[in-house]
Amino acid sequence: MADQAQIEDLVAANRILSDQGVVDGFGHVSARNETNTTRFLLACSMAPGLVTADDILEFDLNGNALDPCGRTLYVERFIHSEIYKAHPEIKAIVHSHSPSIIPFGVTTVPLQPIYHMSSFLGAGVPIFEIREAGGPATDMLIRNPELGAALAARIGKSAVVLMRGHGNVVIGASIQQVVFRAIYTEVNAKLQAEALRLGQGEVNFLNTEEAAKATATNNAVLSRPWALWKRQALGQG
Amino acid sequence: MADQAQIEDLVAANRILSDQGVVDGFGHVSARNETNTTRFLLACSMAPGLVTADDILEFDLNGNALDPCGRTLYVERFIHSEIYKAHPEIKAIVHSHSPSIIPFGVTTVPLQPIYHMSSFLGAGVPIFEIREAGGPATDMLIRNPELGAALAARIGKSAVVLMRGHGNVVIGASIQQVVFRAIYTEVNAKLQAEALRLGQGEVNFLNTEEAAKATATNNAVLSRPWALWKRQALGQG
Amino acid sequence: MADQAQIEDLVAANRILSDQGVVDGFGHVSARNETNTTRFLLACSMAPGLVTADDILEFDLNGNALDPCGRTLYVERFIHSEIYKAHPEIKAIVHSHSPSIIPFGVTTVPLQPIYHMSSFLGAGVPIFEIREAGGPATDMLIRNPELGAALAARIGKSAVVLMRGHGNVVIGASIQQVVFRAIYTEVNAKLQAEALRLGQGEVNFLNTEEAAKATATNNAVLSRPWALWKRQALGQG
Amino acid sequence: MADQAQIEDLVAANRILSDQGVVDGFGHVSARNETNTTRFLLACSMAPGLVTADDILEFDLNGNALDPCGRTLYVERFIHSEIYKAHPEIKAIVHSHSPSIIPFGVTTVPLQPIYHMSSFLGAGVPIFEIREAGGPATDMLIRNPELGAALAARIGKSAVVLMRGHGNVVIGASIQQVVFRAIYTEVNAKLQAEALRLGQGEVNFLNTEEAAKATATNNAVLSRPWALWKRQALGQG
Repeated sequence: MADQAQIEDLVAANRILSDQGVVDGFGHVSARNETNTTRFLLACSMAPGLVTADDILEFDLNGNALDPCGRTLYVERFIHSEIYKAHPEIKAIVHSHSPSIIPFGVTTVPLQPIYHMSSFLGAGVPIFEIREAGGPATDMLIRNPELGAALAARIGKSAVVLMRGHGNVVIGASIQQVVFRAIYTEVNAKLQAEALRLGQGEVNFLNTEEAAKATATNNAVLSRPWALWKRQALGQG
Repeated sequence: MADQAQIEDLVAANRILSDQGVVDGFGHVSARNETNTTRFLLACSMAPGLVTADDILEFDLNGNALDPCGRTLYVERFIHSEIYKAHPEIKAIVHSHSPSIIPFGVTTVPLQPIYHMSSFLGAGVPIFEIREAGGPATDMLIRNPELGAALAARIGKSAVVLMRGHGNVVIGASIQQVVFRAIYTEVNAKLQAEALRLGQGEVNFLNTEEAAKATATNNAVLSRPWALWKRQALGQG
Repeated sequence: MADQAQIEDLVAANRILSDQGVVDGFGHVSARNETNTTRFLLACSMAPGLVTADDILEFDLNGNALDPCGRTLYVERFIHSEIYKAHPEIKAIVHSHSPSIIPFGVTTVPLQPIYHMSSFLGAGVPIFEIREAGGPATDMLIRNPELGAALAARIGKSAVVLMRGHGNVVIGASIQQVVFRAIYTEVNAKLQAEALRLGQGEVNFLNTEEAAKATATNNAVLSRPWALWKRQALGQG
Repeated sequence: MADQAQIEDLVAANRILSDQGVVDGFGHVSARNETNTTRFLLACSMAPGLVTADDILEFDLNGNALDPCGRTLYVERFIHSEIYKAHPEIKAIVHSHSPSIIPFGVTTVPLQPIYHMSSFLGAGVPIFEIREAGGPATDMLIRNPELGAALAARIGKSAVVLMRGHGNVVIGASIQQVVFRAIYTEVNAKLQAEALRLGQGEVNFLNTEEAAKATATNNAVLSRPWALWKRQALGQG
């Protein structure tokens, strides 16, 4: 099984994302097992805001729980398994229905970085249309490896992929980074929609170089907001 | 009287809907009595956020409280009695002034499912105009069986009916389902309004088949968000 | 001095309006003294959210504190004194910078009742332009009896008067009623702005008769939300 | 080192700005040392919501910490050092990514005072474009004295300067004043955007004289909201 510190970080990530409004009763966050990179850690099927260390299970890259302990599994665990399989550099994944991002998945307005905190959006934010891989009559869920692989193929160099009529996936090189990105993607979506209205469509976004440089800078200070979010979600512990 | 577990679920529903902002000092939630389907359970006249098991009364399908215990009754209990009378398959009802839904009741923009969580809206969301049944000078309330019956007649196959200048009614096959639908109708209204502005009227909604399939899927996981909402509204209990 | 129960209701009103976001560090609520109708009760100069019974002072209808106990007085106490002087039927007044209402004071869009809870707006909502009474270079405050009288003269049959670039005044026949109106004016402003955008300016408001009848109905149930708001603001007490 | 009371006020400012949503995990607030005006006080690199008295460091006007105690410093401390150097009358500074203000930094719509609480905006709100001083490929941060000096040169008589794609700087004559201004700039941005939509671009702002007089009035009551904000952020202490 995984290192206890990593499991605790993953529990904190579940609670933080719930406390910050990125996930509600649905959504999930996983991490590639640091001690065995062909495995990943993910809670059993439950609301992220209620997850404890005892609820974290280990999965292989086909989405099988090694020891499910009789727990129900997330139907959409293939989001995680297929992305980890296709992208060795990805170490953590958030899937959510983060509210402000939903409108960008069902319109043609591209999500772009409005400020430095969300500069990672500068790598582009593609939309995954499940009708292309699953046809016009799915239940919208990534409920098998094939749909997971189709989603994974949309990532490219991006940090975020929108899922039309469903939600989004955020990927990162660590639990702290993926939580940071999930939170600031939500903030960016809200502020970008507001700015587009205020400027009647004319908004001065970060350019490509600004976005790349700000991202490198942010990656060095991920622990600063993490400490605050953890305190807010979990108390003094 | 009803089963104690059902009463406790109905108390939890009252508190959850208040905690989630679907109801404020007004609004109510009822359930058809599982042990006698010609009766239903509803609190006496009070804010849902303050309801306890002692405040739950039993009513017949004419809206009479079997033993009112000296309590004041909701003027609009006929919303519940007439819907239960006309629709045997309906087991639970929420009436609220859920804020984001109000604008959809006073304009001609149809509420449609923007994502899978609110896929039950795919069955259509009619508007009840009280002027048709009650004339141009009512106090807007469903204060007698005739108005209740007129409202019940608008439901058809829908899960939600909007009440112009007043609020909405959500129906379900269980307490957990009706609470789920009431909460996600509010979320959908907020996100749909935002998406219509962002897309300048062009929004890619779920199609009919996607909506139907996602609804079937959601019905299997109603207990997941319920556990979170209950914890948030009632604490550890 | 006033009846202790009235003072306690006024303290509750201060706390409720703060808890509900109608007032922030600024704003105030007063009540005509029930035992001497030529006097009114108002806190000394402080944030409403911090007011206790010891902070409530008694004033005459010229805005003089009978026994200020060394406390600083609200500069704008003349809002209250002049309205009570001009309108004997008014028993309670809220002055606030309630956020969603501010835009309606600086544009020409009339505030209208979008649903039955805010039906009292059907009597019309005039705007007080301080430049008419005070000239083009005031500090925006009702800092003397003359400005207070000019504001009082704008009330007519209305329940709410907007103050351009400043806030609003809500009047009522009781503390519970004025708090109800202050809260639902804020809600109405938020929902009306949203509905106007959604309907591209076309909104089906309550008509005059619906508004009048709904107001009479609401006046009979003011204690229902009051109990909830009091619990939320003051705890179990 | 500085007076203990000033340090406690600066800690309170950190907590208040976090509690009020002006800062999140990022942002900072400083004060010129009252006992040595060539020095200023600023926390080490951490989320403002977690700052205690032990985290406050003293800096000279070149941005050097006199005794860093092994702590990491904010990269952007030069915002503070260069503004204090260039403007002797400035005693306190907030730098934040206050959300509602971000859209005004990336569009051409000027921030203007919509009501008396934000009247200090009447002195004008310039935008700092980092591309002018730093070129087209910075990481957006004020990471050296030269960029700090360029930012300081934009202040003029203004209380607020927007930073395109980044955030804003608010300056004041005291800790209480700068916190007041930072909070009401956020409120103003939110309400102004709303009013511009409601009025389709036509909004009746405070005129120059109203703004100046209201600002003088507000400066006399800064302790009123401060007491509330402190209670909300720090509890009864």
